[in-house]
Amino acid sequence: VIRLTRRYRFAASHRLHQPVFSEEENRRIYGKCNNPFGHGHNYVLSVTVAGVPDPVSGRVADPKALDRFIEKNVIRAFDHRNLNIEAEEFAGGGAPPTTECLALAIRDRLLRDWSLAFPEGAPRLDRISLEETPNNKFELRCP
Amino acid sequence: VIRLTRRYRFAASHRLHQPVFSEEENRRIYGKCNNPFGHGHNYVLSVTVAGVPDPVSGRVADPKALDRFIEKNVIRAFDHRNLNIEAEEFAGGGAPPTTECLALAIRDRLLRDWSLAFPEGAPRLDRISLEETPNNKFELRCP
Amino acid sequence: VIRLTRRYRFAASHRLHQPVFSEEENRRIYGKCNNPFGHGHNYVLSVTVAGVPDPVSGRVADPKALDRFIEKNVIRAFDHRNLNIEAEEFAGGGAPPTTECLALAIRDRLLRDWSLAFPEGAPRLDRISLEETPNNKFELRCP
Amino acid sequence: VIRLTRRYRFAASHRLHQPVFSEEENRRIYGKCNNPFGHGHNYVLSVTVAGVPDPVSGRVADPKALDRFIEKNVIRAFDHRNLNIEAEEFAGGGAPPTTECLALAIRDRLLRDWSLAFPEGAPRLDRISLEETPNNKFELRCP
Amino acid sequence: VIRLTRRYRFAASHRLHQPVFSEEENRRIYGKCNNPFGHGHNYVLSVTVAGVPDPVSGRVADPKALDRFIEKNVIRAFDHRNLNIEAEEFAGGGAPPTTECLALAIRDRLLRDWSLAFPEGAPRLDRISLEETPNNKFELRCP
Amino acid sequence: VIRLTRRYRFAASHRLHQPVFSEEENRRIYGKCNNPFGHGHNYVLSVTVAGVPDPVSGRVADPKALDRFIEKNVIRAFDHRNLNIEAEEFAGGGAPPTTECLALAIRDRLLRDWSLAFPEGAPRLDRISLEETPNNKFELRCP
Repeated sequence: VIRLTRRYRFAASHRLHQPVFSEEENRRIYGKCNNPFGHGHNYVLSVTVAGVPDPVSGRVADPKALDRFIEKNVIRAFDHRNLNIEAEEFAGGGAPPTTECLALAIRDRLLRDWSLAFPEGAPRLDRISLEETPNNKFELRCP
Repeated sequence: VIRLTRRYRFAASHRLHQPVFSEEENRRIYGKCNNPFGHGHNYVLSVTVAGVPDPVSGRVADPKALDRFIEKNVIRAFDHRNLNIEAEEFAGGGAPPTTECLALAIRDRLLRDWSLAFPEGAPRLDRISLEETPNNKFELRCP
Repeated sequence: VIRLTRRYRFAASHRLHQPVFSEEENRRIYGKCNNPFGHGHNYVLSVTVAGVPDPVSGRVADPKALDRFIEKNVIRAFDHRNLNIEAEEFAGGGAPPTTECLALAIRDRLLRDWSLAFPEGAPRLDRISLEETPNNKFELRCP
Repeated sequence: VIRLTRRYRFAASHRLHQPVFSEEENRRIYGKCNNPFGHGHNYVLSVTVAGVPDPVSGRVADPKALDRFIEKNVIRAFDHRNLNIEAEEFAGGGAPPTTECLALAIRDRLLRDWSLAFPEGAPRLDRISLEETPNNKFELRCP
Repeated sequence: VIRLTRRYRFAASHRLHQPVFSEEENRRIYGKCNNPFGHGHNYVLSVTVAGVPDPVSGRVADPKALDRFIEKNVIRAFDHRNLNIEAEEFAGGGAPPTTECLALAIRDRLLRDWSLAFPEGAPRLDRISLEETPNNKFELRCP
Repeated sequence: VIRLTRRYRFAASHRLHQPVFSEEENRRIYGKCNNPFGHGHNYVLSVTVAGVPDPVSGRVADPKALDRFIEKNVIRAFDHRNLNIEAEEFAGGGAPPTTECLALAIRDRLLRDWSLAFPEGAPRLDRISLEETPNNKFELRCP
């Protein structure tokens, strides 16, 4: 089994605020990220797929198909967006768009349509990681 | 003369929109950055100062004094902020918070109080650079 | 389960020398690192914690609490220090402060007080990695 | 158990072309990489070994021995080479020198002579990763 | 005046060989780069333009126009190419495709059509840099 | 004129202490760097040379000759060394081994023997930069 990891980038804004918490709790839990006017980040998404290389083509995955899939299902939804208002996962309430929740949303989007894009079960989605800053990264195994 | 460059980071959100332009012009000129709900970036600011090292201390600048100056005059104003609403340079209209204009605003803030912080003219502010993404950087000589 | 990795930096000096070995063995085993006057490095520490995001806050860990814990238990002990003389793990003899042994010392410090800092068992300490140079890295699962 | 990862670099050229496929299939599957005149990359190889640090030396592996082994078995074979013509794994036909197949060839080279270079079973070869570009990486556990 | 630098990447293969030199001279001067079968690199091109930001748009250059210009005049010519055979600057003989000569070729291509793409003299092409590896970079002021 | 920049790395330890200053002044001016037992860094040295590419070889400099010159005159003197004790520039007193003074010492070493190594005046030494950490860099034009 070989694991292929490809990196993608998108820029978005967000505000961390949980209406269930008091103002004081929001400030204590989210600190500067609770600023009512929002702020933003350059996110770096790494998508790892796993599979056995095809003995004839020598490839474990079609990189162009993977790029199209990520573009369609992730980049288009989140790049140059306000996550609180424009991302359906966060616009309706629930937990705020922490990078943890954004990583979970990305994983769910990838798993939802994976079998349509890669119908023969190859490659398998193995894990994703999402960097909010160079010093802050979240990893999630799939599924 | 030795030049010392120190790097600082801040995260902010912005929207590029010029009311003087039509909707169509705004979309054409600013593309995705014109999204009405905004987006954001991790900015990397490099500040370069120049001077002759003190022959006794062997130092061209006091790095802690420089850090305090940048923290007070730049980071506090822009980190985890919405540039369109919370930065006085952009809240009142005029050109939108492009990275060019943000770099100019940072240079003006630094020059405005430089002689108070470094009264003996040492070190001299030489140039700044501001990265919006790893592939997009703006440089500005001072003054 | 989501894994959060945060990066920290410290600078220290050390000398690799094992009194049990002959001078010739020390030189052969440790090479330039056996230099009697010591040398130093910028170390990069990555700390990975694992947990289930809180459904209300959307957070797997409090990043400020984690930073305070690492600052208190690791950075204060090793940053701008001579590891052979000032680190209690190496000052008393035993194996010299190789990056392997330094990584083990860091892991032990983190595990020792982890349950005091994160009493509800969340997040769990998952692994650490320690880079001595950009081309030389040590990883350790916890516990 | 501690894992030590060391990074190595080599530059090589290749062409992705499978004679079993039609011209049209080659172009569709390999895209620009099918260019008949070839192209090239700076590859970054990370080799991870695992073991228990020696209680006296504090070392999990002799980094100089590891470097010599990689130099002899990998760098000499692939650095500043045309992979299609000069690498024995690809000169005789079969799957083309995709990065997947190059990673497999490197793993096989390392495993073939590992027990000669590290006869006491220490350290153990754990995994390798091979980057073709900063955004495209292949990982392989060993064995 | 503000300077904007944007980064681009391409992968190519080359062989350094000067027919005017003897075989022995070629080996001495070019070392491994003289390998008759060629090798390759991931090149990183930084293009710096200079200008005064437009007071209304706040922009010093249209980044999309710059990207299209570089794509058309540089990337299309060199990406996934064999520089010795496919680049018109080197196919006809003369100096071999060293990174110095490749940088000169890129500068000439940019200057040749610059005034067509940016007819109002804004922005001005200021300098380019070309990295062959992370440790080897060439800079060239324009014109 | 083309500028070629090559990067080199070395690791060293130092203590910043000026006997002319009081203990209190030393602590105030040098902070943690005044720790009596010393600490250390991974330094990154960039050496920039300038010249006109040779029209036959296509080269502005012989990279192997430059590497040998830097190895002999800089790396051998400072790598895996204690700068206060082992570097002749600092062992005899004077200003302490700040990165400013270390950069000046490196420039003087390079200029001292440059005309012996590159007797035909080609390439010319243009500038050096020395990074103490990824966020702290010193640049010096030559001569």
